Amino acid sequence: MQARRSAGLFISFEGIDGSGKSTQVKLLADRMPDALVTREPGGSPGAEEIRNLLLTGDPDRWSAETEILLFTAARRDHLEKTIRPALDAGRTVICDRFADSTRVYQGATRGALRGTVDALHDLMIAREPDLTFIIDMDPQAALTRGLARGSGEDRFEDMGLAFQETLRHGFLALAKACPNRCVLIDGNREASAIAAEIAAHVTDRTQGG
Amino acid sequence: MQARRSAGLFISFEGIDGSGKSTQVKLLADRMPDALVTREPGGSPGAEEIRNLLLTGDPDRWSAETEILLFTAARRDHLEKTIRPALDAGRTVICDRFADSTRVYQGATRGALRGTVDALHDLMIAREPDLTFIIDMDPQAALTRGLARGSGEDRFEDMGLAFQETLRHGFLALAKACPNRCVLIDGNREASAIAAEIAAHVTDRTQGG
Repeated sequence: MQARRSAGLFISFEGIDGSGKSTQVKLLADRMPDALVTREPGGSPGAEEIRNLLLTGDPDRWSAETEILLFTAARRDHLEKTIRPALDAGRTVICDRFADSTRVYQGATRGALRGTVDALHDLMIAREPDLTFIIDMDPQAALTRGLARGSGEDRFEDMGLAFQETLRHGFLALAKACPNRCVLIDGNREASAIAAEIAAHVTDRTQGG
Repeated sequence: MQARRSAGLFISFEGIDGSGKSTQVKLLADRMPDALVTREPGGSPGAEEIRNLLLTGDPDRWSAETEILLFTAARRDHLEKTIRPALDAGRTVICDRFADSTRVYQGATRGALRGTVDALHDLMIAREPDLTFIIDMDPQAALTRGLARGSGEDRFEDMGLAFQETLRHGFLALAKACPNRCVLIDGNREASAIAAEIAAHVTDRTQGG
């Protein structure tokens, strides 16, 4: 169990595309009207500028290493300008994706760089959420949902079912590796049932200490 | 002495603003028509995009740490897309500023971050020039030259004489710390005399091994 903090609680949501993450972020935010809701990549004006470099133009113009540096720069700005001020003011922060997404996506696509990703995080970010909900989901169902959403922004949704399976295993491994902050949530249920379970975990963490 | 390389020689020029660096880059390039001439920040299309984030808009919107990450992302792209391919093809690369500029400017403005700058370099760049010419110059004369040039792009030129003195000492300390690759050049002379000395050093390094 983590010690209680006078600062706000930093909650992140992770999972494969179409897992229902964003729906759960919204449902938790509805229960916590004072919480700050944010997301990555982006989440602050500077991070959005950096995000545009990654999402517009030919994505292959960046190497894996340069892309990781840009994601880390965006995350640093997001942490400094959006997340940390809210936590310092005692607010709960609910973040749709954080560093775990980088770890899992890079681990799935370029496993040899996983050590670099971790070292860069330790050097320049050095902050984990207090509580991370990993929404676990059948990839076939998640993929169908993701395609149906059609946001067009997420490059990873184009990569198909086998890739989503790889990502799922990455998130499951992460939940196992970080049991103190990660809670694995079965996403193959009604959204309201999932939301109730998540709310109970948050209540337990904020009140139980 | 460094071992001879079959790959091209990587030469950088460093020094305070107005020290005559860029003139010497040009004069050396005139003697080496096959050399690739480049500069930082920038030096590749991707690095130029990142450079625009740093040079346009309010420069204070980035923290020191985010700025260092963006400079490192630009440098990584410059190294991968411009410098390394030329070296691998056996060409000499002449670069106006490289990582030493980041070290000295960050050391002068935010000394507490110098360790972070070095760790980030070791993790994501891990390459030094083979030969670095540090053009040493009286700051008063250099400042006058720098203001006269009026490029308007260099934020550091606005910071005045005392700052240039601090930078000069940073470059002198660097020359002392890295004697194998750094050559300190007295910039208070005619450009042609300086160029002749630099050319002699390059000849010595390429032929003497």
